[in-house]
This record gives sequence, C-alpha cells and structure tokens, in this order.
Amino acid sequence: MPLSQALTALRSFLGQRLSTSKHDLDLHGRSEAHSAPPPPDAVAWPETSAEVQQILQVCAEYRIPVVGWGAGTSLEGHALAVRGGLVVDFARMDKVLEIRAADMDVSVQPGVTREALNQELRATGLFFSVDPGANATLGGMAATGASGTTSVRYGTMRANVLGLQVVLADGRVIRTGGRARKSAVGYDLTGLMVGSEGTLGLITELTLRLHGVPEAVSAGVCAFARIEDAVDTVLDTIQMGIAVARIEFVDAATAAAFNSYAGTSLPHAPHLMVEFHGSPEGVAQDAARFGEIVADHDGQGFQWSTLEQDRRALWAMRHNAYYAILASRPGARALVTDICVPVSRLARAVTETQADLAAASIPGPILGHVGDGNFHSVLLIDPARPEELAEAKALSHRMVQRALDLGGTATGEHGVGLGKLGYMEREHGAGWDVMTALKQALDPQGILNPGKLVRPR
Amino acid sequence: MPLSQALTALRSFLGQRLSTSKHDLDLHGRSEAHSAPPPPDAVAWPETSAEVQQILQVCAEYRIPVVGWGAGTSLEGHALAVRGGLVVDFARMDKVLEIRAADMDVSVQPGVTREALNQELRATGLFFSVDPGANATLGGMAATGASGTTSVRYGTMRANVLGLQVVLADGRVIRTGGRARKSAVGYDLTGLMVGSEGTLGLITELTLRLHGVPEAVSAGVCAFARIEDAVDTVLDTIQMGIAVARIEFVDAATAAAFNSYAGTSLPHAPHLMVEFHGSPEGVAQDAARFGEIVADHDGQGFQWSTLEQDRRALWAMRHNAYYAILASRPGARALVTDICVPVSRLARAVTETQADLAAASIPGPILGHVGDGNFHSVLLIDPARPEELAEAKALSHRMVQRALDLGGTATGEHGVGLGKLGYMEREHGAGWDVMTALKQALDPQGILNPGKLVRPR
Repeated sequence: MPLSQALTALRSFLGQRLSTSKHDLDLHGRSEAHSAPPPPDAVAWPETSAEVQQILQVCAEYRIPVVGWGAGTSLEGHALAVRGGLVVDFARMDKVLEIRAADMDVSVQPGVTREALNQELRATGLFFSVDPGANATLGGMAATGASGTTSVRYGTMRANVLGLQVVLADGRVIRTGGRARKSAVGYDLTGLMVGSEGTLGLITELTLRLHGVPEAVSAGVCAFARIEDAVDTVLDTIQMGIAVARIEFVDAATAAAFNSYAGTSLPHAPHLMVEFHGSPEGVAQDAARFGEIVADHDGQGFQWSTLEQDRRALWAMRHNAYYAILASRPGARALVTDICVPVSRLARAVTETQADLAAASIPGPILGHVGDGNFHSVLLIDPARPEELAEAKALSHRMVQRALDLGGTATGEHGVGLGKLGYMEREHGAGWDVMTALKQALDPQGILNPGKLVRPR
Repeated sequence: MPLSQALTALRSFLGQRLSTSKHDLDLHGRSEAHSAPPPPDAVAWPETSAEVQQILQVCAEYRIPVVGWGAGTSLEGHALAVRGGLVVDFARMDKVLEIRAADMDVSVQPGVTREALNQELRATGLFFSVDPGANATLGGMAATGASGTTSVRYGTMRANVLGLQVVLADGRVIRTGGRARKSAVGYDLTGLMVGSEGTLGLITELTLRLHGVPEAVSAGVCAFARIEDAVDTVLDTIQMGIAVARIEFVDAATAAAFNSYAGTSLPHAPHLMVEFHGSPEGVAQDAARFGEIVADHDGQGFQWSTLEQDRRALWAMRHNAYYAILASRPGARALVTDICVPVSRLARAVTETQADLAAASIPGPILGHVGDGNFHSVLLIDPARPEELAEAKALSHRMVQRALDLGGTATGEHGVGLGKLGYMEREHGAGWDVMTALKQALDPQGILNPGKLVRPR
C-alpha cells in the first residue's frame, strides 16, 4: 500500500506531528463550503521548510495527494482533500522572521495569521493591509489571492506579496520575487503562485509589503434612496482621485440586520461606509469632498468622524455583518456568494440580484467592496431543508452567470475551490487549457491539491 | 527550405505587408543594446489578431522563430531576432478600441504608443500612467513589464494591465484577465504574460487601467550634501504616507549635465525631484510636509510650484537627462544600466557605484526612480574605442553583482533581453528551471523569441 508506506516514511521524521486520528482528520475535513467530501488520510504539522520539502519528496515518491492548510476559513472548500491523501497544516510554522521597517517589508512563515502579524507590527508604525475579514493565515491568503475592505486603496494579496519560498511537487525549493520594489527579470513566478490554491506548490515563507499606519483616519456612513445613487457616488469619488481606504456597500436588508443585531438605527435603505487615510487636514478634506458627492446624489445623513471610537463602532458593525445577517434568521446557515463586475455594471448586477432574491423563498442580504465592483450575497438557508440549499446554489449560479454576462468574474476574492470550478471553462475558454498545461509542467503526477483549479484528469 | 515555404505561405495573406528587403530587415535588426546579431529573415505587418494567429500557425508549421516588435526602444535588445526568423511589427495595429471612462479602463491594440493613447484620452479627464521615457508601444511595454517615473504612485505595467488577448505559439488565441478590478479565479495568466518578453505569446490586445488626471499638481527640486541624506528623505517621505507621484534622484554629475545642456544653475550636488498629485490643498500640504523632511536632512533650496510651466520645465529637464548626459561627452554613445535594490540599501548601492566610477576611465552619471530603489548609470563610451565598451560592461556587471548582493534584482525595469540573460541563473536558481519548464509547456518547439529569457536549448 503506497499510503501506508508513505505514512511510515513521514512518521520517521515527523513523529507525533503526523496524525491519523479520527479527531484530527475530521478537523481537517471541514470547511465553510457546502460540500462534504471524506476527510484526508493523514495530517502533518511540519516545523520547517526542510520538513515540508521532505514531505513532498515522500508524497512524490508514493504519489500521495498533498493539500496545504492554513486557518481553514476558506468559503469555497479550497483545502478539502477531495482525493484523500495528506493535509499539511502550517500551524507550527507561525514565526514572524524579520521586520525591515526601513524597507516597509516583512518575512513570515505561512502559518502566521494577519492579526498576529499586525500585533507584532504595533510598535513599528507599519501595518499589513489585506483584511479578508476572517483571521486567516498569510500562507492561505497568498495561496487563495485574498483581498477585502482595504484592497481598493492598498491592493489585494497580488500587490502585497513581494516574494515567496515555495516547495514544488517534486520537493525542489524555489524563491520567487525578492525584496526590490520592482523587477523586470523574467516570468512573475510570485504572481503565478499567488491565487494558485495549492496546486503548484506549498508556500513555506512569504515576504510581504507593509504600509505606514496613517497619521489620521476619517470614516463615515450615509444612506441613499437608490442603489444607483450609491454606485454613482462611488464612481465619482474614485474618478475625482479621492483616495478612499475603504468604501463598502450594504443593502437595506443588511442595514436592517445591523439594527437588530447591534441596536443601531440606520434607515431601511442602501448605505455606503467609507474611510480615508492621510494627514489630519487631508482626511478632513477627503471626507468633506466625499460629503459633497454624496449630496449631489441625494445621499442622506452623511456624518463622519476622526475619532477612533466612532470608527471602531462603524467597522465593528461591518465586520460583524456576517453574524448580524445570520442572526436575522435564527437557526440558519449561510451560503456566501462572491462576484465582481466592472464598476459601471455594479448597479445593474446588484438590482438584478435583488430582483432574483425578491422572487426567492430565502433571504440574501447583499454587501460588498464596491470600489472594486465586488459584492456578496449572504444566502440564508435552513439546514434542515435541502431544497433551500438547492435554491441558494441556483441563486448563486445566476449571480455568476450575470457577472460573466456583464464582463465580470466568477469570484472577486473567495476563489475557485470546489464552488466555482464549474465556471472555469466559461470564464477562461482556451486559457483554462493553458492553466492546465502549466500545472502539468510543474506537477506532472498531479499530487498537489488534485481535483482543484485546473481541468480534472 | 522551410523558410522559403513559410514566406510563401505568409505572403499569400500578407501580400506587401511581408518584406524581405534589406532596408526593412536592417531597420528591424537594430537596437539600443550593444550587440549586433544579424537581422531577421523577414518582417510582417499584420493588421488584425486573426492575421497574427495565421502568422503563428504558419511559423509553427515550419518551426520559424517569431519575434514581436513595438517601437524598437528596448535598451536590452529584447526584439532582436538572434536566431533569425520573422519579426512581427505591430505598427499597423495601432487603434484605441474602446475607452470606458466610467470604469476607468481602455482596450487598445498593441501598436498604440503611450503618447498616442494619452492624446486620445485628453477629453476624458483620465490618463495612462506608465511612462518609461521613450514613446514605446503599449504591447511592447506589457511584454517587457515597463515602468518609470510615476510607478512609485501608480504602479508598473504589472499593476496597470487588466487583461490581454494573446496568440500562443501554436496559434491558439486566449483572453487573460478581464475588466473586473480584481479576480481570484485561477492562475494569473495576465501577470505571467506581462514581462515575458515575447517568449510565451504575442499580445494582440490589451485592457489597461486608467487614472483620473489630478485636480492639482505640485512639483519641486532640492539639493543635498550627501546621497544618504537624499535617500533618507525618500524613506521618511514614503513611511509618513505622503503619496509622492514621482520622486527622482539625480547625482551631481547629472545635475552638472543639466546645467550645461539646459542652462540651469543647479548646485553640483545630489538632487531629488518630486511631484504630488491631488486636490489644491492636498498638494500644497504634501509639498510643505516634504519640505520639512528635506530640512530635517539638511536639504537645500527646496522650491515647489503648482504652476504648469514650472512643472513642465522641471520634468523636461528630467526627461532630457539622457540627452543632457550624452551631450556632456561629445561623440559618445551610452550604455545604460538598470538595477533595483531594497530602498534601505540604495545609498550604499549608489555610493559604491560612484566609487567604482571614480576609479574608471569613463563617466557614468547616475539617476533613478528612488522611491522604488531603482537607478541607472548612463555610461558614456567612445564608439571608436572598444576597450571603453568593455569597461562599461565590466562596470555594469559590478553594479548587477552589487544589486544581487544587497538583496536586489538585476533589472528593475529595462528587462532581461540579451544584456541580463547571464544573471538569470544567479538571481533565480531553481526558479529559472521553473521558468524554462513553463516556456516548454506553452512553446514546446521554442519558436517564440528563441534565445531569450529561459535556459538556452
């Protein structure tokens, strides 16, 4: 049995850090996605890049599937071992290796979470900007190409990963990118690895770009009669070059969920929540200019503040949106969709989605990172009623089809995983064959996260 | 003869737009690089993506090398047909296809130059930001991963190409990326193509990100006693989050060349030239804050202005730096080097390079995009004295070795071409094998720009 031989070989250097206990396997067979393949055959907790290399060498020899595992917060089942094999959990590779404040970069192991990194950075005046909501690991965030509320200003993971150390399918170790802020020296292997969802290699070290903590921050919220007005406000703001740090949309249903959950008294209407970073004068001016644009589009009640407590309350509300929405239907589970369209198509995408939802039997409040044209619907389903899961999947499917019809993409940030694999053909056409050829070139045995991202074989 | 058969097949649909005249071949065998391989065997001027596809199909059938050609402004000989074959000149594919102002993006054919694009955008309030100095084509800029003075604020080509249409080595046509501002749906093929120097495919259409023309601009110049002070000023400015739109360094020799060439009266000292984009209040405040940082580092004579004529004079001086430096040694030719290091290492890289130059027999004024840690030396050689070319190459070699020793890269923006191929092994190690495997997967016959970027075969 190749598997038992592989496990014997792995145990020889991992010892207790290799587990086949039902408890551990079950923990690494769960996800936020709505599919439940069987758990993996084993879980490993390496402590060094060298151990990851040894793991890949063994798995290559015995052709055992290998799936990386960060914090398990993926919404699309990226880390589910759908063909069995070994899950490599990076929890023990959680060191911040070196902070280089003058260069505004940092090297970390893949198991460091974004909150832990920002905690370590507190004294430096720097922060790591990508914030997908969940306290994901940086290795997982790079592997899935994560983004979030601040990406409109500071970019997604693609813009914030300067370099990687990666162990390939055959155990070779490469370094991609580097610490120079730009380079024109060959194929962008860093960019190829970011978002490759563990199918091309396992990330064992990351060099990340940091940003200066802004001297001042202003933030505020306002309501609109119509979604179109909110979107036009976003378009005008960006076109005028006002550097929003965050610009988030929530629909009336989400605003109502906030009111119930957090005791706020937002009007039952679409809202924008914004934040500006800069000097004290700059953020005051940005907020004032934004207020004028809001007024031009009949927005109501724009109030902004530079006080930290006001800002914290605002973003705590936004960050708890998922829980607020869940609480709006007691006992429900959520299927969270994710699409992204050109910003000019956003109002249409949202209003058509709302029309779909109005005709559906389940609620699905909408919210999103509108500066990027990216939005989600949190579809609430009764777990006891499989027909509701089917309906949620059908609604999500219509959203993706609409995004593609409007020149957008099947996922702006949640990634492909299991949930979006069916859209690769339509979105990429022959480009999907190219992806498959690249995968074949780097992982000819197909042992890295098999069944994901490229054409199944 | 495969070549003559291929030319017959190509002529059947290209007609007069295929040439084998000595004049045309010579024009497409020249470059700014200091090597002179023989000219190509033929030049084609396609007018459509479909023709490019046909060209690749013919060249694949007869295994003829194919090299893309934009404006021929590469400094490293990217577009030289070192193994003969066909040069594909994109001069007739020069249409701006669609400007989508609301989405701040544009689709263009590859032969559009950056100046022509900005000319077309004049009425929109938008501009395309990447400015490598030369009036290069956008296809060439994408293929080489170009950048320039504004990259510190708006990013390099990697950040500004949203999507591509690419014809592959076997004639298949793919679309990469798209118009959504972000996407997490598979490998970043756009990022893989940008900077691939024509070795993976020919770009036949680009979708580019645009930026809003700033409401106000301020710009200024100041001098420093020591390079370290100039670099520390850059570090503090970026760390304080002041969003410089340009921050350029010129050394004392370059300042002296400006004085002779343009009649300015800059002190014989290192200088920084800066520009800020934003609201009238914002750019005034940014300039004032920058002035305080300059004063903290004993900088002298910082004067700034929001007047267009002052700004134009400043940047005309910078843009003419190459000619000013050339004029400082009548009859000389230039070998222009390009390295990039982490910003904290910049002062050391520049001062050590200056020490090298002080001991050399040829001059080499230094200037660069210091916000990115990227700088150039314009090595001036007497074309009649081959020993000077050899000395310039030796100086350039030492600069690259130093950049790599300091954690930097062999080229920040000029690319690999012929000049930097010898550094791929050292900079990438096993990563170069990975690049070679990717190339092999997409171009197994090796017909796309052979002899470039990957391991020679």
